[in-house]
Amino acid sequence: MNLQKLRSDTPCENVYLNHVSTSVPPKQVLEAMNEYFSIAVQYGSTSAKAQEMTAERFNRASHSIASLIGAHDDEILFVPNGSQAIGMVVAGLRVAPGDNVVVDEMSFISNVAPFLRLKELYGLEVRFAPAKLPGLVDLDAMENLIDGRTKMVALCHMANNLGMVQPAAAVGKLARAAGTLYLLDAANTAGIVPIDVDEIGCDFLAVSGRKYLRGPAGSAFLYARSSRVDEIEPVFATWNNGLWDWRENDWDWSKNRFTPHKGIDRLNFGEVNFPAAFGLGRAVEYIEEIGGVPAIKERVDLLLDRMIAGMRKLPDVEVYGSPDASQHGGMIGFNVKGIPFDALGRYINANNVGIMAHSFYSPGVLKLFGIQGVARYCVHCWNTEEEIDYAVSLLEPEKLARLRGESGQ
Amino acid sequence: MNLQKLRSDTPCENVYLNHVSTSVPPKQVLEAMNEYFSIAVQYGSTSAKAQEMTAERFNRASHSIASLIGAHDDEILFVPNGSQAIGMVVAGLRVAPGDNVVVDEMSFISNVAPFLRLKELYGLEVRFAPAKLPGLVDLDAMENLIDGRTKMVALCHMANNLGMVQPAAAVGKLARAAGTLYLLDAANTAGIVPIDVDEIGCDFLAVSGRKYLRGPAGSAFLYARSSRVDEIEPVFATWNNGLWDWRENDWDWSKNRFTPHKGIDRLNFGEVNFPAAFGLGRAVEYIEEIGGVPAIKERVDLLLDRMIAGMRKLPDVEVYGSPDASQHGGMIGFNVKGIPFDALGRYINANNVGIMAHSFYSPGVLKLFGIQGVARYCVHCWNTEEEIDYAVSLLEPEKLARLRGESGQ
Repeated sequence: MNLQKLRSDTPCENVYLNHVSTSVPPKQVLEAMNEYFSIAVQYGSTSAKAQEMTAERFNRASHSIASLIGAHDDEILFVPNGSQAIGMVVAGLRVAPGDNVVVDEMSFISNVAPFLRLKELYGLEVRFAPAKLPGLVDLDAMENLIDGRTKMVALCHMANNLGMVQPAAAVGKLARAAGTLYLLDAANTAGIVPIDVDEIGCDFLAVSGRKYLRGPAGSAFLYARSSRVDEIEPVFATWNNGLWDWRENDWDWSKNRFTPHKGIDRLNFGEVNFPAAFGLGRAVEYIEEIGGVPAIKERVDLLLDRMIAGMRKLPDVEVYGSPDASQHGGMIGFNVKGIPFDALGRYINANNVGIMAHSFYSPGVLKLFGIQGVARYCVHCWNTEEEIDYAVSLLEPEKLARLRGESGQ
Repeated sequence: MNLQKLRSDTPCENVYLNHVSTSVPPKQVLEAMNEYFSIAVQYGSTSAKAQEMTAERFNRASHSIASLIGAHDDEILFVPNGSQAIGMVVAGLRVAPGDNVVVDEMSFISNVAPFLRLKELYGLEVRFAPAKLPGLVDLDAMENLIDGRTKMVALCHMANNLGMVQPAAAVGKLARAAGTLYLLDAANTAGIVPIDVDEIGCDFLAVSGRKYLRGPAGSAFLYARSSRVDEIEPVFATWNNGLWDWRENDWDWSKNRFTPHKGIDRLNFGEVNFPAAFGLGRAVEYIEEIGGVPAIKERVDLLLDRMIAGMRKLPDVEVYGSPDASQHGGMIGFNVKGIPFDALGRYINANNVGIMAHSFYSPGVLKLFGIQGVARYCVHCWNTEEEIDYAVSLLEPEKLARLRGESGQ
């Protein structure tokens, strides 16, 4: 990879290691968003000419994104964020008393809460697939939880406070064997872990645009397998997700009813956010230009390996999960003995390394390791060796001694 | 108003008269969006410094928008579009058999479909308040439809194919008298019609950002009255709209349940689209800078009066609704006898006037006038007298004669 190009495309002045929260888009992505508005200003936002140009670019964005994950263009829905992608699928599940879902307990809250909501509203049984060390879903236990009443299996591809990439294809085999729907929360992995929806066997894939894909804030997409999407009821009903049984000269509401479209259009929820779609499509094209996801993973693995090795040499630093960088999706969670995770995070931020320290709303991981939160380092391909070394050096005992003194520990 | 400033802020090369679909943002709005990304690139998107700067600007945007409509800052939720604003309210209504809603029949489809969905799912009775000439909701009929089982009254402030501003405050009095919830779809009126939620008495206000407010595509907001919002069940359940009964050292999903927040935060659906929020907040500040909504309405009324007067002089042109421009929210729907509305629209677009001709998914208006669609002219304050005259001149009989010849009519 051409690091000089990567850096000039993203002239970030800070050391930035918080890509699982939101990465920094390369300038090409911002240019693509601005292109939407350039067209709007020049021709008028919805003039015939602007609509034609917008439609062409929108179709290209859908195609680029579909190609990234081995999907068809008509299986992609642009949404405002990953949580809504999950929410629209789960809230639309048809559930009856006695039905259950199997959810990986290391999930982020957005991959669990919608099911708990169905539990309260309709008595859905929510079964949690346990985690085992070093931080992987227990496939045998998961298999035992799936039965003939399992409506959906939901997996979080990578917990945001651990970074271990979960065996998505193995879970897909379990789901296929049971004939149940399979939802994969790939918010944190798309752009760093190669994803092919057919190899994985997922029916729904929720992807955040602003993380490892480096699309703009406000961009995200849902993949929905065309052969299964009609099993989801639309939670919204609006102008672009249903057919209306209008007859000419009979524009009478009371004679008409809402019939959802077939296919992913049934999940439309109103006007598309075109600039966000342009930006996200361009972000995916940029990934291909710099070498593709496998090349990104390869470089990130090298950087993360350097980071993990450096941190494991330091006393009192505990890095969670496997020490094998390639099993991570570019991030690690860690703690330092005797320093609360939030104080650690403030100290690192104060030293110009942009990170977060939090529970990260993924309690299954905290339970597995018996902790209350972690500090998090995320690495992307445009980070440098020097940045990695600097971030590691902040955890050297002599530097932490002062922090311990300040925090009285 | 300083027209020179308005035009240099929006250097549109076309005659653009489609603001009810999407207007063109002034450059200040695009600069505000880009400011989000400038901060992200310089400091790292979610570095501590970037988060602090983003929060400050986000709060300012919420405050500007709340001030525009006489609301409190904590009654504003940023959403991707107006349809989702309505959808999240209506899909969250608690309805029981025997309950009804009263909906104005001149509504856009997005203000009706969510209720029809509840009809199918839960047997909600949907009552339609009829329209009367020249294009106003029949208040007496509406009052008669409201009873003790009416859960909500919904009004479309301005149909997108007619442009008549509906008596929102009078409907508010009816709703208040009955103690029922009141949802106002102000997608097409915010930014051109002064709106004060207390004067109107609405509990929910759905507003599209990209229309007369001239925010960016992808921006919109929902106002929800703090004293009534807890009557709405959240359709989404995610990391930022519920409290979790976690206890330290007990990160166990199966012991926990989802409890929605009180207040508008219960309707959060995941990560906020910060750049869209920045842009929409700036759009509202821009409105104040150029004189405020009343000044915009005054100028638009003058332009629209000129347009209506010009069109009424032409044979075969039928303009719907009152000929009094001040009763419109900047737009008119029209037809030319003997020319299908869609052919008329294509002709006008081909002459470099950006407009749309359609049913516009507001069938109540079509029913009232016995038509299948309209061509639409929308006027904003940055349109010029010359543009108005040119748009009118396209409907002169000698010009239309050629069109009639081409279309064989």
